[in-house]
Amino acid sequence: MGNPSSSKMEHVRTPFRGIINDFRGRAACYKQDWIGGVRSGLGILAPTTYIFFASALPVIAFGEQLNRDTDGSLSTVETLASTALCGIIHSILGGQPLLILGVAEPTVIMYTYLYNFAKGKEDLGQKLFLAWAGWVCVWTALLLLLLAIFNACTVINRFTRIAGELFGMLITVLFIQEAIKGMVSEFNIPKAEDPKLEKYQFPWLYTNGLLGIIFTSGLLYTALKSRKARSWWYGTGWFRSFIADYGVPLMVVIWTALSFSVPSKVPSGVPRRLFSPLPWESASLHHWTVIKDMGNVPPAYIFAALIPALMIAGLYFFDHSVASQLAQQKEFNLKNPSSYHYDILLLGFMTLLCGLLGLPPSNGVLPQSPMHTKSLAVLKRQLIRRKMVESAKESIKQKASNSEIYGKMQAVFLEIDSSPAITVAKELKDLKEAVMNGENKGENPKDSFDPEKHIDAYLPVRVNEQRVSNLLQSLLVAASVCAMPAIKQIPTSVLWGYFAYMAMDSLLGNQFWERMLLLFIMPGRRYKVFEGVHASFVESVPFKYIAMFTIFQLVYFLVCFGVTWIPIAGILFPLPFFILISIRQHILPKLFNPHHLQELDAAEYEEITSAPRRSLSLSFKEKEAAGLGNEEGEVEVCDAEMLDELTTSRGEFKVRTVSFHEDNRGHVYPEEIVQQE
Amino acid sequence: MGNPSSSKMEHVRTPFRGIINDFRGRAACYKQDWIGGVRSGLGILAPTTYIFFASALPVIAFGEQLNRDTDGSLSTVETLASTALCGIIHSILGGQPLLILGVAEPTVIMYTYLYNFAKGKEDLGQKLFLAWAGWVCVWTALLLLLLAIFNACTVINRFTRIAGELFGMLITVLFIQEAIKGMVSEFNIPKAEDPKLEKYQFPWLYTNGLLGIIFTSGLLYTALKSRKARSWWYGTGWFRSFIADYGVPLMVVIWTALSFSVPSKVPSGVPRRLFSPLPWESASLHHWTVIKDMGNVPPAYIFAALIPALMIAGLYFFDHSVASQLAQQKEFNLKNPSSYHYDILLLGFMTLLCGLLGLPPSNGVLPQSPMHTKSLAVLKRQLIRRKMVESAKESIKQKASNSEIYGKMQAVFLEIDSSPAITVAKELKDLKEAVMNGENKGENPKDSFDPEKHIDAYLPVRVNEQRVSNLLQSLLVAASVCAMPAIKQIPTSVLWGYFAYMAMDSLLGNQFWERMLLLFIMPGRRYKVFEGVHASFVESVPFKYIAMFTIFQLVYFLVCFGVTWIPIAGILFPLPFFILISIRQHILPKLFNPHHLQELDAAEYEEITSAPRRSLSLSFKEKEAAGLGNEEGEVEVCDAEMLDELTTSRGEFKVRTVSFHEDNRGHVYPEEIVQQE
Repeated sequence: MGNPSSSKMEHVRTPFRGIINDFRGRAACYKQDWIGGVRSGLGILAPTTYIFFASALPVIAFGEQLNRDTDGSLSTVETLASTALCGIIHSILGGQPLLILGVAEPTVIMYTYLYNFAKGKEDLGQKLFLAWAGWVCVWTALLLLLLAIFNACTVINRFTRIAGELFGMLITVLFIQEAIKGMVSEFNIPKAEDPKLEKYQFPWLYTNGLLGIIFTSGLLYTALKSRKARSWWYGTGWFRSFIADYGVPLMVVIWTALSFSVPSKVPSGVPRRLFSPLPWESASLHHWTVIKDMGNVPPAYIFAALIPALMIAGLYFFDHSVASQLAQQKEFNLKNPSSYHYDILLLGFMTLLCGLLGLPPSNGVLPQSPMHTKSLAVLKRQLIRRKMVESAKESIKQKASNSEIYGKMQAVFLEIDSSPAITVAKELKDLKEAVMNGENKGENPKDSFDPEKHIDAYLPVRVNEQRVSNLLQSLLVAASVCAMPAIKQIPTSVLWGYFAYMAMDSLLGNQFWERMLLLFIMPGRRYKVFEGVHASFVESVPFKYIAMFTIFQLVYFLVCFGVTWIPIAGILFPLPFFILISIRQHILPKLFNPHHLQELDAAEYEEITSAPRRSLSLSFKEKEAAGLGNEEGEVEVCDAEMLDELTTSRGEFKVRTVSFHEDNRGHVYPEEIVQQE
Repeated sequence: MGNPSSSKMEHVRTPFRGIINDFRGRAACYKQDWIGGVRSGLGILAPTTYIFFASALPVIAFGEQLNRDTDGSLSTVETLASTALCGIIHSILGGQPLLILGVAEPTVIMYTYLYNFAKGKEDLGQKLFLAWAGWVCVWTALLLLLLAIFNACTVINRFTRIAGELFGMLITVLFIQEAIKGMVSEFNIPKAEDPKLEKYQFPWLYTNGLLGIIFTSGLLYTALKSRKARSWWYGTGWFRSFIADYGVPLMVVIWTALSFSVPSKVPSGVPRRLFSPLPWESASLHHWTVIKDMGNVPPAYIFAALIPALMIAGLYFFDHSVASQLAQQKEFNLKNPSSYHYDILLLGFMTLLCGLLGLPPSNGVLPQSPMHTKSLAVLKRQLIRRKMVESAKESIKQKASNSEIYGKMQAVFLEIDSSPAITVAKELKDLKEAVMNGENKGENPKDSFDPEKHIDAYLPVRVNEQRVSNLLQSLLVAASVCAMPAIKQIPTSVLWGYFAYMAMDSLLGNQFWERMLLLFIMPGRRYKVFEGVHASFVESVPFKYIAMFTIFQLVYFLVCFGVTWIPIAGILFPLPFFILISIRQHILPKLFNPHHLQELDAAEYEEITSAPRRSLSLSFKEKEAAGLGNEEGEVEVCDAEMLDELTTSRGEFKVRTVSFHEDNRGHVYPEEIVQQE
């Protein structure tokens, strides 16, 4: 994971230094950010629509959650509007344009606490809720500005895996809770509704609940299946990629369509659909008065707003930076500089703006941000590959020598890529060797140079770093505010299924979860773990310590989860996470062997494959893999599939090593493995 | 697969010779069949209950199918009664006591055709249906007697994979058809019912349908998951075995229990439950008059009954022999002789008996018969292992030399097993070596003799061949006729889910299905097949011929399936299968290279593992497998798990070889593989 405190900034303690450095660095490539995007032509639409769907769906679901939890004060219109507004601002004025913004679950939870607090106070009430939340945003913005000015981002490498995964697990459990609460609610009459309506009479209420079960589990099952489409055996590559990229929104559309197949004898309103006022209805237009109402909030509450603001600022600082960090992992070979400090500054301003408009603020989101970078890497690769193959074929036609061919290819690469020639030469070393070998061993047709095959195998990773895809996807989100009449047709039960899907999906690659599962494997069965791909700590840390560490984390997790259930003080739920960072720093090293702690709380997600399987590497060297019995000879492994296999569902890269397990069976001790690494 | 025409009978053409030989062979071990069973003590109850559930559930489901298709003339009471009656007779008087009998799907289909035919004729009608079916059974019995007398079983090795798998596929498709028809029927009012009842009013009818969808898919999903429990990573071995063995009946119980959780406001009859008269109600007692009614069947119909009888006799001959064959595969190391001819004779008498009592006849069933043998192998193994470990430990205590220890162990084995000492010595060779090596390399504690570990690793397979488990499970089926009031509580939709489960389950290991899937894999993706365990024909036959053979089989399958849709002539549906056997014999060898044909239509189910995975062998040599990082050192792989991995869901053994794929990548030609085998 890239460390944001790059050497240049290591000793910076001067206020504003981080912001100024970031600003200068990004200003230098600002023009290129637009030109590069426009140059990609229509190809840019693929990452754009991909990220749009990945980003809009949860925002719609969170909107419905907010709508229930705030008795309609906020709804899908507001969450979409905030996402669109902040996305547009960030894509134009932001530092790192790979970062994707949106309204996230922590915001929804905080706003629910704010609402419950406000509702309970006579001098606030539902009426002044948004105005008071506006004050919370004012304080939050102020705190974020201070964090940016005093270069707080230099400490984000203290946010280790333990806190991040604990927080991820909390979100997962809250998603599951939301899915279950939602499904149960389908059997009950909503509180604000008239229980005498036909659709709330027993047979129909029960029918609604049963349809809810079918839609919720149907969406969950099909969405989980479609997520894995890229590695299916069947169907063309295009079809599999399409299902993997757009399967989840597609399933929402399909289940929504199926929900219209209920016989006409069923009264309208069964199954229940999303409830949200349309953006042009009066219920949505009161936001423009929030800023006026802010003057009516009693001063005591204005100061009390500092407490939730502290929590939100901490959360946003953490989330925004980690999302940005994962979008810029070193495996992506990014060329443009990072912009952590400046982006926190801008986030402060956007939070202020949202607060004044009565919208829930947006911040950097996972896994959409690294997904965005990944999709741009695939796009860029296609572009470079095409041009290099063209040039090589041209040279071959002219009977150029292999070194001439390579020279032309390198020139083409340099033309597209802005990296210094010396770095490129190093990165292209393998390709050069392959081309040159082609000349020497010319007699064997298998080794001779084949432009398509060799370029595929040895091309380094490049990302199309630009602002256009981010802007376009934000504009699409803005457009979907106008599509609310269509979005309102989604049955609520499909959204509960979507919550369950998000929960399941986020568990993959969460080492805390994987370690908990490990505790349930009987000692005699643990060899099964070694047979497959497994996290490296399984081999390097004795089971006893894995168990201790995991049980500590589990108990801590239960405390955190317990806090969310406390009626008003629940608003302090991020506090234990901040405390955990300090526990990790000062107490855990006293309880665990530092080496074990480092393995269990590693910065990198390290995996070990036991069998000598196809070794996965990021230079896309895959295509050589077996092809026996396959007359066509060509093996199809698409880039996106490899990237899928190599990243966790949070978007984090996995580092893979091959185990030495098979060779010295029974004789490998933790020390040896460490040395071998 | 064991060839029933053992050398002794190869030239037998004399009538009755097969029956007489079988009878003599089995008579010699008849007493031992009972003593051996009684000696196993309570241990025999495990295979008994296991087979009882595996055998009773489909019989209940087929009963409900028959009940719908014959307007209640036959129902679950009759299918259970026939299964119990024939099971008891076969376990006492039958030749091969490992063979399990039951009412099977082909019988249900044939009886449905018979019913539809009878119903349409004025001088038969529903009233004389069972009497006419009785005549069909009389003819069938006669034909089976003739087949037994003239030693027809010597030809059963002509029933190759192509016909068997085609037939299996037909049953699968009919199961799926039944599941879908059943699920749709939950939304409709049954024809014989009064549509004015409250439960048939629209909201409740629709509720019944929705509950049907939930129960059907719920049972299908959970049953499929529980089937794989043995290889789960989590839970104790006992728990996993229990779920794998009893998961499906358990799921039926759980979903039935859940069906009682519908609120009390839902009228009774929603969800619909199994419909069957109780065995002591008058509707079930008319069977005793069937034999009287047989005299009232017009003579023309008595002779017409010969046509369906030809089909049924062919089917039963085929099914009964193949089930028996798979229960006696050579991998089981059975000691008692086979009894194909005599068992067909007895089947004839049982068919006659069922016909006269107005019951649908039973025949040998798959996969229950090989499942029975498998469970008895596990039981026997536990017994031998315990006694041998005891003896070895005793000898070690007395400081006996390793050759003395081995001598004692062999003596114990011989005492339990009836095989000749010379064969046993050969089979125990590996164990002997292990024991002897323990003495020589005594200095290395890892190699020294550990009774439990070494006996586990080198014990040959033995089956507890006896009649007790078969008799007990048949008695349990008889007892469950009295449990009809409880069985009637199963919702019909759970049974449709069970049909879908049986369909899915039977596809695993059906090479016809696997080849069809192969056609949908793009050429560039075929390497994925080689990465996993795959059937050997994938490597040894060029794709073009695999495709040709499969498409031929598919077209033939569609013809067979089409025949079942023809109203009355559909009764001839087994005919294409009989013709296929002749096509396979005379026409296919002209279209395909004999080597390819042999691979595609192989007698053995051969598989290739590509990576040097744990090699699976039937001598249970598994336990040595990896155990690194596992402090307890003991690896838990239970016997049943290995057997599961090594048999298809039909109960057929897989022969596994390791591919040479990795070593000479890209250079293996079909010829080489054949030689290496």
